[in-house]
Amino acid sequence: MAKGKRSNRTVPRRLKGFRDITSADMLARDRMIGRIRRVYEGYGFVPLETPALEYVDALGKFLPDADRPDGGIFAFRNEDDAWIALRYDLTAPLSRFVAMNPTLPKPYRRYQVGPVYRVEKPGPDRFREFYQFDFDTVGSASMLADAECCMIMCDTLEALGINKGDFIVRVNNRKVLSGVLEAVAGGEDLSDKTQLDVLRSIDKLDRVGLEGVKLLLGPGRRDESGDFTQGAGLTAGQADVVLGYLSLSADNTRKSVCDDLEKLVRASAVGLEGVEELREIDEALTGAGYGEDRVIFDPAVVRGLAYYTGPVFEAVLTFDIVDSDGVARQFGSVFGGGRYDGLIERFTGEKIPSTGASIGVDRLLAALSALGKIDVDPTTAPVLVTRLDKKMTAEYQAIAAELRRGGINTELYVGKQGIGKQFKYASDSGKTVAIVMGEDERNAGQVSIKDLRLGVELSKEIGGDRKRWLKEQPAQFAVSRGEIIEAVKKVLERYSSG
Amino acid sequence: MAKGKRSNRTVPRRLKGFRDITSADMLARDRMIGRIRRVYEGYGFVPLETPALEYVDALGKFLPDADRPDGGIFAFRNEDDAWIALRYDLTAPLSRFVAMNPTLPKPYRRYQVGPVYRVEKPGPDRFREFYQFDFDTVGSASMLADAECCMIMCDTLEALGINKGDFIVRVNNRKVLSGVLEAVAGGEDLSDKTQLDVLRSIDKLDRVGLEGVKLLLGPGRRDESGDFTQGAGLTAGQADVVLGYLSLSADNTRKSVCDDLEKLVRASAVGLEGVEELREIDEALTGAGYGEDRVIFDPAVVRGLAYYTGPVFEAVLTFDIVDSDGVARQFGSVFGGGRYDGLIERFTGEKIPSTGASIGVDRLLAALSALGKIDVDPTTAPVLVTRLDKKMTAEYQAIAAELRRGGINTELYVGKQGIGKQFKYASDSGKTVAIVMGEDERNAGQVSIKDLRLGVELSKEIGGDRKRWLKEQPAQFAVSRGEIIEAVKKVLERYSSG
Repeated sequence: MAKGKRSNRTVPRRLKGFRDITSADMLARDRMIGRIRRVYEGYGFVPLETPALEYVDALGKFLPDADRPDGGIFAFRNEDDAWIALRYDLTAPLSRFVAMNPTLPKPYRRYQVGPVYRVEKPGPDRFREFYQFDFDTVGSASMLADAECCMIMCDTLEALGINKGDFIVRVNNRKVLSGVLEAVAGGEDLSDKTQLDVLRSIDKLDRVGLEGVKLLLGPGRRDESGDFTQGAGLTAGQADVVLGYLSLSADNTRKSVCDDLEKLVRASAVGLEGVEELREIDEALTGAGYGEDRVIFDPAVVRGLAYYTGPVFEAVLTFDIVDSDGVARQFGSVFGGGRYDGLIERFTGEKIPSTGASIGVDRLLAALSALGKIDVDPTTAPVLVTRLDKKMTAEYQAIAAELRRGGINTELYVGKQGIGKQFKYASDSGKTVAIVMGEDERNAGQVSIKDLRLGVELSKEIGGDRKRWLKEQPAQFAVSRGEIIEAVKKVLERYSSG
Repeated sequence: MAKGKRSNRTVPRRLKGFRDITSADMLARDRMIGRIRRVYEGYGFVPLETPALEYVDALGKFLPDADRPDGGIFAFRNEDDAWIALRYDLTAPLSRFVAMNPTLPKPYRRYQVGPVYRVEKPGPDRFREFYQFDFDTVGSASMLADAECCMIMCDTLEALGINKGDFIVRVNNRKVLSGVLEAVAGGEDLSDKTQLDVLRSIDKLDRVGLEGVKLLLGPGRRDESGDFTQGAGLTAGQADVVLGYLSLSADNTRKSVCDDLEKLVRASAVGLEGVEELREIDEALTGAGYGEDRVIFDPAVVRGLAYYTGPVFEAVLTFDIVDSDGVARQFGSVFGGGRYDGLIERFTGEKIPSTGASIGVDRLLAALSALGKIDVDPTTAPVLVTRLDKKMTAEYQAIAAELRRGGINTELYVGKQGIGKQFKYASDSGKTVAIVMGEDERNAGQVSIKDLRLGVELSKEIGGDRKRWLKEQPAQFAVSRGEIIEAVKKVLERYSSG
């Protein structure tokens, strides 16, 4: 090809951090989303869809660790010179929607699933466009709503085939953390920055351990790579309050964690309020039969987002996954949320107490896949009707239509290749059955059914003996034209996953 | 409230041309998408999802009537200073995907559903974010693939409850139009602009009639509002060729339309090729039982997009809709597509013959709604378990859980209002049944079931007689605690749409 021509071509490329999701993954995701939806709907949540694009000021600055006004998001100016952006989560748009619709019956319980967008450094499991599936209860201050969040998280994971024991829902309360900060301050004022640094240190317990948290609370910590993280600058006595708090074991009963917390924050009104809320959540969970084997109270839970005001919760997968480098690691949090009583207030001037949680669809799907819990066919139509003799196309069409009417998704081969290539196409595209009919068969009122999966197995047995293969055609058999649906169903049932 | 405080508030606003889609509309759309998907999958199409954001050069300039490089689309520069944009359709991303994956088994048949984005002047039925649902066959030059497109369009509309006679699929071929342009040119060269103007004039037949087209082909046309559209500048003799072409009636059989077209373009090789392709489509349609009551050949069909190279088709709803102004009007095209053999070539340098169609999900949903074919509940959970006595919450939770296990989506009231407000909430949020249990009932082993829909009817009969209402409670009855599932099911069945 001439160089000049080549240079006219556009290079087909995709933005970094974005993906194309193909058949098997899409079918698995659709099935997963369907199951999640049924759980959410079971509790009375209704769907909502908001636009992908919003005014930046309507979204607000609630992205974790985003310091620039447009930091971390895809933002640009529209034709009116206003800053607009792709949504970075589904909670900010929900708040905007609720504020615009003051007459919504409350509690308003909605679910929303869809892509959100963040400008993050892309990685193997880190994308700039990823799916979230949220449910929220807007307009209820009752801890029953928070308890339901925890129950729904359990029900959802169980509906996806993750059994009790393979996950745990960890619950804490931001008010308790405020109480701890008050105890740390001991009557003095802690700056906002110090408070944030303390919460961040607590949040890192899982990764750096108690010793690491101690350094982060005090002078700072140097990690294995040599990077230094500035510490919160607490005194040793102040740090001890936090470390005492973190050493409260989440392995205890919810009631005993509450008792311990109460002692620790007894001087803080807000802290005691937080403990009382946890007790209410415990009561509702216990009443509904959700014990400590599924939901625990864990003082180390912070949840990064700045807008939480009360209970926070996350579901963690507790089994190890062997990743692509062969290293076993924990999957961590796949589902999280909390109560945010002030998020709608910034529009309306009025607190609208709200609580909810968000599932990381892609992360959870990866976990299910690693668990071997994904069991979908890679294709939608298991049958290919081949066209051995193009002149008989009308008859092939009739066979395909008949199979479809019989409830069997069926593709008619519409390419121009010969029968050998058609079989290869059938295998490559994941079909189970190929239908063949030549003139002789037609005249005898018959069709041939080829079991492509059996064919692959048997061809391994027979090895390279092509002659024997052609003579025996072990994976192919003839049936009379009238029995085709029944015969195809019988083959498909062999491979059905139930 | 202090003025200073008020001015700190953010105004909750949404971008113009964008919408929030709430429960009933979402449920209707989901159901519709599910039905469409089943038809597409029946023919062996598999799902694909591509990113919402793409490089502008990868999308290409295929938007109808967009003259600026970023005209008509949401485009901006990313952190690497490259132009990126929200996709304006699903075909351009498909082409990019196929070009990046040369080893895909072909024909590759994929469907994709999702929002696309265009900077258009927003109107009552015109949005900047709207859903398309496409299916395409990539890598088949066979007219069988195009015929299948027409069949699938018919099957889809019928699956959505639009009967034969209420829609028609109109088919034409761009090659036939090229043949007509050659006949118009009569051996001379027509400029690209003139050719485009002629095609645009033909495309306007439905709106301006034959006389209007005549003006548009020649000197130009002034519409009722006084706006003048410059004409294509054909001579009267040239215009007559086009008018003769347009006067070929689409009411004839497909075969006779082909015969007529063949005479008209007999001097044009490409024109004759187009007619031959139409004959092949006719043969495949006839073989599969799709007659002229569903698919016609219509010389007036152009389809605006520049990239079509062969057959083009559209599905038109043929009944009148009374719009919000009380004016009857035709709904027009809801589904359209065609063959595009060159779209992937711009990446690969190699023609990859492709054909497919796209459904305008929102427009079609509006049409179904106007037809009264939308029949979904506005909510997901028909039952509300009220909390008359908050101390009995654990027992209300148990009732809700039991109903869920019985397959009935059930919301537990998690707000803090009294029972009267709870009933109002139940009605406002579209519930059918409310469950009530006070202490007396509990002690008697009973619960009360309130039929909220019957309640609304009866309250109209009784009128304002509140005393009588309270005494008779005609829409409420008690059942024993063990019979609750059965009793609720019986009430729900009264209103089931089947």
